[in-house]
Amino acid sequence: MAKLQIALDFIDLNQALEMAGKVAPYCDILEAGTPLVKSVGMECVRQLKKSFPLKLIFADLKTMDAGEIEVNLAASAGANYVSVMAAASVKTVTSAINTGKAHNVEVVFDLMGTIDKLKRAQELQELGVQYLHIHTGLDEQTEGQDPLETLTVIAQNTSIQLTVAGGINSNNLIKVLTVPKVDIVMIGSAITSAGNPAESAKIFYRRLKTIKLDKLWNTKEFSKKYRKY
Amino acid sequence: MAKLQIALDFIDLNQALEMAGKVAPYCDILEAGTPLVKSVGMECVRQLKKSFPLKLIFADLKTMDAGEIEVNLAASAGANYVSVMAAASVKTVTSAINTGKAHNVEVVFDLMGTIDKLKRAQELQELGVQYLHIHTGLDEQTEGQDPLETLTVIAQNTSIQLTVAGGINSNNLIKVLTVPKVDIVMIGSAITSAGNPAESAKIFYRRLKTIKLDKLWNTKEFSKKYRKY
Repeated sequence: MAKLQIALDFIDLNQALEMAGKVAPYCDILEAGTPLVKSVGMECVRQLKKSFPLKLIFADLKTMDAGEIEVNLAASAGANYVSVMAAASVKTVTSAINTGKAHNVEVVFDLMGTIDKLKRAQELQELGVQYLHIHTGLDEQTEGQDPLETLTVIAQNTSIQLTVAGGINSNNLIKVLTVPKVDIVMIGSAITSAGNPAESAKIFYRRLKTIKLDKLWNTKEFSKKYRKY
Repeated sequence: MAKLQIALDFIDLNQALEMAGKVAPYCDILEAGTPLVKSVGMECVRQLKKSFPLKLIFADLKTMDAGEIEVNLAASAGANYVSVMAAASVKTVTSAINTGKAHNVEVVFDLMGTIDKLKRAQELQELGVQYLHIHTGLDEQTEGQDPLETLTVIAQNTSIQLTVAGGINSNNLIKVLTVPKVDIVMIGSAITSAGNPAESAKIFYRRLKTIKLDKLWNTKEFSKKYRKY
């Protein structure tokens, strides 16, 4: 069953902690967003871990270089997940993976900005990558493109676990979950900018935890598209 | 005349400030390295600006997303330069440029991890980018490649100012400076890991400020290669 991750995209630590207090009961993972990390450093990860010891913490470092140093930073602060850019060098990728293993931290490689995403995903699989992050851009459907296409193609052609973000709301959530290997769904503003963030988080969380994918599998539309899984 | 930037690649703020105290007299720009930023947040930029008010401060944010927010963060903390990844989306690139202009902060686009660097450099020029950062990898000459090739090709085919890093030492510094449009030379461990960082910085700084490029221009080797400038 997929996990719900809520992104705390603030630059003020108190605001982030206050929001976390509202939504934490309705998620599996709290994310220290990149601007928050750059604003206050690893203190945000330490504070989140301290205040919400039962939640997993994702440090969205978007590491591009110095893989060992940055994964170590996140691990020492108490993170369970850390992001590294998929475009990083082989040395950065492998040192991040090895440092993650040494500290029991999952390293999630973010395909943002990578042009040939499938090719890079396959290269990363060869390097031992276990999590790939894909921005689906569900709100960018103006050109009639299927925003789930990249996600689906990578799910079909690699064995890597996937994490997904981008314009996911409680209506289109189900579309994302029908793609196999989606292990984490990341939501930001759809929850944190909602009038009632706790209520919004609760709706997402319930839906995510109660969707019966088995039933979906058997509907015509999905069996046609995803039968091969 | 090119500027010397010294990268403070520490994760401890006190160590970074101590090193800055040693080398600041012999550089134009002090760089808050990416791991330092992720470790302690914008406090490192504020402290550097406060302690070294006559130096320019470079915040190596390596921004991949949220251009406006992150450039604002660096500007508010007192940075004069901020880095954004060249692979970032058009929206991130343009919002970073506009925010930089609004706050009089130079935005330097880092080509690290970009596969077709010249193509991307030309795209970025169209978008109004004024500074490009290139890692020359002067220490990666194992395959007989010219580590200055990317730098030279981009200098020849764009009108963007260049900043350069990667394995530059006091011996090969001159090679970098012979490429036109190099405005900033960034040095890290060659200074900060030296037995005597202040002495090393002084050697670099003097060499950088006293090299007579006019004379170089007229030597056979360089006039052949760079005559067109």
